[in-house]
Amino acid sequence: MTEYDVLLADCPARTALELISGTWMIVVLVGLAHGPQRYSDLRRRSGGITKKMLSQTLARAVDGGLVRRPDQRGGAYALSALGESLLVPVTALTTWAETHADELAER
Amino acid sequence: MTEYDVLLADCPARTALELISGTWMIVVLVGLAHGPQRYSDLRRRSGGITKKMLSQTLARAVDGGLVRRPDQRGGAYALSALGESLLVPVTALTTWAETHADELAER
Repeated sequence: MTEYDVLLADCPARTALELISGTWMIVVLVGLAHGPQRYSDLRRRSGGITKKMLSQTLARAVDGGLVRRPDQRGGAYALSALGESLLVPVTALTTWAETHADELAER
Repeated sequence: MTEYDVLLADCPARTALELISGTWMIVVLVGLAHGPQRYSDLRRRSGGITKKMLSQTLARAVDGGLVRRPDQRGGAYALSALGESLLVPVTALTTWAETHADELAER
């Protein structure tokens, strides 16, 4: 494996980080964590997301290989193996956010 | 501790997640991981960051309590205890990005 470093501007790891960073991508990944979801169910679970933002986030997730598109219209979106592997660090991050939410809200 | 859920729009955990999400915040936190850094050194380490983006990111990090401002002009920025605690999930995320960079770049 090549050694990469997100501190370097031209590093592929930076591109990978750009794909996964952003609140909505994390919310969508967490929304799919417990199994495939139809668009409408995913939208209901992801509080406050607009149709446009959900569509854009899903398109980026599919392009990036994190999520599999439904086989048929109205079918369910599901995490790919790569998307599943991302749940470990994403869960660590959301757990941190949930643990320190009070502390951050007080500021 | 209150139970929080980043899937909920009005949850303080969502606000916490918004603070830490974004490529530049992660790059800046990683840049401070090995100790305090002056603004100019941090800018040099964070490949591709503009002065404006570094200033904005540092201001958000200071406001959010993740980073301590220098005591004197030209001094060093340092992670707070809260910022240090964030390094664990952030490192998990950047390690994932570094590990899967090739796979993502091929797409």
